[in-house]
Amino acid sequence: MYCILVYDVGEKRVGKMLKHFRQYLNWIQNSVFEGELTKGQIEEMLGGAKRLMKKEEDSIILYSMQNDKYLEKKIYGVDKSELTSNFI
Amino acid sequence: MYCILVYDVGEKRVGKMLKHFRQYLNWIQNSVFEGELTKGQIEEMLGGAKRLMKKEEDSIILYSMQNDKYLEKKIYGVDKSELTSNFI
Repeated sequence: MYCILVYDVGEKRVGKMLKHFRQYLNWIQNSVFEGELTKGQIEEMLGGAKRLMKKEEDSIILYSMQNDKYLEKKIYGVDKSELTSNFI
Repeated sequence: MYCILVYDVGEKRVGKMLKHFRQYLNWIQNSVFEGELTKGQIEEMLGGAKRLMKKEEDSIILYSMQNDKYLEKKIYGVDKSELTSNFI
């Protein structure tokens, strides 16, 4: 499945969430991630995220599709994901 | 076209961007928007955003697809877009 994941969590949990999701997906921008995952990996990733999140405050949205064939992506301005990969 | 738009812009421009994109899309979470737009509307929206953004600092990503038939969306925790609409 091709996934786009966005999160909006309390400041205290931003770092942990970032670290968690980077294990599964590519960091794209701010609190946005992208990547190809199996259903098993998605379950594992969300299981971990649910343990880290405060359900009454935080929000995680997962968009998924069978593949990225129908998805068009355009970046305007800076491609922050490229900037990051240069530093790694 | 069904659109998911995410932005990561300098603090000074966040308010203006939010206001701009809300004219075209539904605010979903933090700096994430969603909605159905024609190609003409997309061009108009991006034209306005390009005037507001600092190209060397800011980043706007537009994901688009013909329709949302192939897109699955799951929300974990709070649905911030519902919370907002309650206040409007």
